[in-house]
Amino acid sequence: MDSINPALSVILPHMKTILVLGAGRSSSSLISYLLAQAAPNNWQVIVGDFSIDAARAKVGDSQHGKAIVFDIQEAELSKKTITTADVVISLLPPHFHVVVARYCLALGKHLITASYVSDDMKALDEEARKNDLLFLNECGLDPGIDHMSAMQLIDRVRSEGGIIRSFESFTGGLIAPETDPENPWRYKFTWNPRNVVMAGQGTAKFLEEGQVKYTPYQQLFKRIAHVTVPGYGAYEGYANRDSLKYIDTYSLDGIETMLRGTLRNYGFCPTWDVLVQLGCCDDTYKMEHVSRMTHRDFLNAFLEGSRTEAPEDKLMRVFNLAKDSPELNRLNWSGFFSDEPVGLKEGTPAQILEHILNKRWTLQSTDKDMIVMIHRFKIELQGKVKTIQASLVAKGDDATHTAMAKTVGLPMGIAAKLFLQGKISSRGVQIPTKKEIYEPVLEELKKFDVVLFEH
Amino acid sequence: MDSINPALSVILPHMKTILVLGAGRSSSSLISYLLAQAAPNNWQVIVGDFSIDAARAKVGDSQHGKAIVFDIQEAELSKKTITTADVVISLLPPHFHVVVARYCLALGKHLITASYVSDDMKALDEEARKNDLLFLNECGLDPGIDHMSAMQLIDRVRSEGGIIRSFESFTGGLIAPETDPENPWRYKFTWNPRNVVMAGQGTAKFLEEGQVKYTPYQQLFKRIAHVTVPGYGAYEGYANRDSLKYIDTYSLDGIETMLRGTLRNYGFCPTWDVLVQLGCCDDTYKMEHVSRMTHRDFLNAFLEGSRTEAPEDKLMRVFNLAKDSPELNRLNWSGFFSDEPVGLKEGTPAQILEHILNKRWTLQSTDKDMIVMIHRFKIELQGKVKTIQASLVAKGDDATHTAMAKTVGLPMGIAAKLFLQGKISSRGVQIPTKKEIYEPVLEELKKFDVVLFEH
Repeated sequence: MDSINPALSVILPHMKTILVLGAGRSSSSLISYLLAQAAPNNWQVIVGDFSIDAARAKVGDSQHGKAIVFDIQEAELSKKTITTADVVISLLPPHFHVVVARYCLALGKHLITASYVSDDMKALDEEARKNDLLFLNECGLDPGIDHMSAMQLIDRVRSEGGIIRSFESFTGGLIAPETDPENPWRYKFTWNPRNVVMAGQGTAKFLEEGQVKYTPYQQLFKRIAHVTVPGYGAYEGYANRDSLKYIDTYSLDGIETMLRGTLRNYGFCPTWDVLVQLGCCDDTYKMEHVSRMTHRDFLNAFLEGSRTEAPEDKLMRVFNLAKDSPELNRLNWSGFFSDEPVGLKEGTPAQILEHILNKRWTLQSTDKDMIVMIHRFKIELQGKVKTIQASLVAKGDDATHTAMAKTVGLPMGIAAKLFLQGKISSRGVQIPTKKEIYEPVLEELKKFDVVLFEH
Repeated sequence: MDSINPALSVILPHMKTILVLGAGRSSSSLISYLLAQAAPNNWQVIVGDFSIDAARAKVGDSQHGKAIVFDIQEAELSKKTITTADVVISLLPPHFHVVVARYCLALGKHLITASYVSDDMKALDEEARKNDLLFLNECGLDPGIDHMSAMQLIDRVRSEGGIIRSFESFTGGLIAPETDPENPWRYKFTWNPRNVVMAGQGTAKFLEEGQVKYTPYQQLFKRIAHVTVPGYGAYEGYANRDSLKYIDTYSLDGIETMLRGTLRNYGFCPTWDVLVQLGCCDDTYKMEHVSRMTHRDFLNAFLEGSRTEAPEDKLMRVFNLAKDSPELNRLNWSGFFSDEPVGLKEGTPAQILEHILNKRWTLQSTDKDMIVMIHRFKIELQGKVKTIQASLVAKGDDATHTAMAKTVGLPMGIAAKLFLQGKISSRGVQIPTKKEIYEPVLEELKKFDVVLFEH
């Protein structure tokens, strides 16, 4: 029936097919999980990617998986492929999810993603319900495990008669303590590097003591929350773009403080702020003379002053830093003062910065990443105010089965299983804030050492 | 022949018609000049505006002028009106100039504007030349008098065998010393307030000692040049968006330093920087609860911290300011700490900021504005490096015949006269950097006390 997927013609009557779209960096743990669960659940797992090699590498020699070429921009191919599935899990770039969702609607397929519900996706809610379809989004780490673990705590507090007064939540993709011990940033790219470089542009909105507060980009890495995770040390949190919408998401109407943020190791933010203040993260214009630019030239282009003054001295002067300050030390470790050529022909500041950082911040095969998530609640129970802190620390196995891949991928895999087992009754455009989803997903995640501890 | 402009049917054979499009704030001096020159030159001056009252107010009872309704978005009306003119002077919002220019091309009319040459305008150059038409742009103050006075100096230095090594130029629309003496900003809106509030967003590019430098918005009002104008005191200059393109404009290839900037009174920039750092100039999102917001609430929304801490104290803490600092004093004078309602139903930070500032920064009828322009050159002459500084200070007569209206409008009026007298031979899309334009324009401007002095 299908020249591309000959294997599909031999599907057994009751076998279910899960189609995973996208075999990139974050798909490893999801696909491993699905393949491991395929035999007992009578599944076939099809992995489609633009690159057949990437898809094959993830499927390996599993008898339950099949690698295919997939390109969402080819309509016929997309239709033919999606029609073979029972559940589609989309790991495509976020703006493609709604394209996949429209095919799913037309073909009567269920959909799971780890991305934020876009307005376009939201608009499909009614039609999905009418067609008895589940479009489950925000089912990864952040958004995903953050929703599930927060709702579990919130529901429990409420069932005990408590009122949530304040909720702050921070998540970060970091490196494990044993990795790269000399790296003064305690950071490497474990997620899309471009998103890291561009992070925080725009204005962050949150609620503080009943007042809406706005933090612009130029203040974001200065206004940091200090967060300690028992046994792991000190972290810094900076506010995410829009914390206000989570008041609705978690039904926290009347709450006084609501802040969601990103976690970095202690000292990261003040150094990153130097790059922000200099304008190194700007993506709106191309720089001049990039082909003959060194790392040092790059930094110097953002520092006014005489040719005879070294960029180190300019930084010390402009940002009032000492010669042995942690900020200069981090910038030096990343090679910003070196005469190494950038190695690009052209680029915006953000593109050049990403390129320079990638030279030191790329995860090596033996490196382990680490996810840290922390929730801080202030609750009122029988007239008394109480603080609850819960944290999750998940480590990667290596540079393939990263903590990021596990925590983003496993919730989708578990949700797909629960759904195919008939254990999820919700339909329409959903996020995992309902008990029927978060309870069993969080329970199964414990087996993978992905678990929140309260303290 | 024309139901809208009956007067046109009685135009004398050799009478020339100048059509002024737009009768807004900056048109007063231009229209007065044209009307005064109409009789000796045998002109008719038609002033078209969306508002007939605005056009009538500018024309007054002059026998040489005619007020008409004009709307560039009505094609038939535009065609009919422009066809009656010999020269069109467009004071419309800049993006409409190219629309006017296309009519001028179709109808064989010459055009003068005070705005930057857009890419669309530039694209009409060849066709304008073919049709023997002059489209003269950037013929106001900045751009305009800055080009003319700079080129006059540059041409003179070159004719003496000198080489230009460095050129910095700053222009500012300020208030006269006798106006509003208690105003600690020494500033009021004498130009489009929105442009003032949004000024500097993006990244400024300039050349310093042979190196291209980039100053992002978050550093712009910190990296100020200190400028002194003999007899007028101390000013601050911040860099304009793109100084590099003026290397071509002025044929200064090989120059080492090239910077163009905006001038403000001493102390303005550090205070404005507080508003920039807080995010008050952001125009990308609407704030919450604007209808019940006071000035004080507005400022406080950008300042984190407890409800019990006053915004004054937060500012002192965040920006390390003393209680009696000039920055707090200026913000206080502008009413930022008052409990006065903002008085808007909704708005972006930039819109609300503009609204609050307008309460104190609107030019009163007796107020006088003042234009300050300063050029600083370093030239090499016979092996010696020499500094030349030239400055222009022009004061307004009142809130109608402002220095801004004079310096923006008169160069266009004079250029129109020179052109109609056959004294400008250039054709195509031009700016006033040629001697045949700048010499006679600058000469006649002296009669209006618009003159640069060297020191």
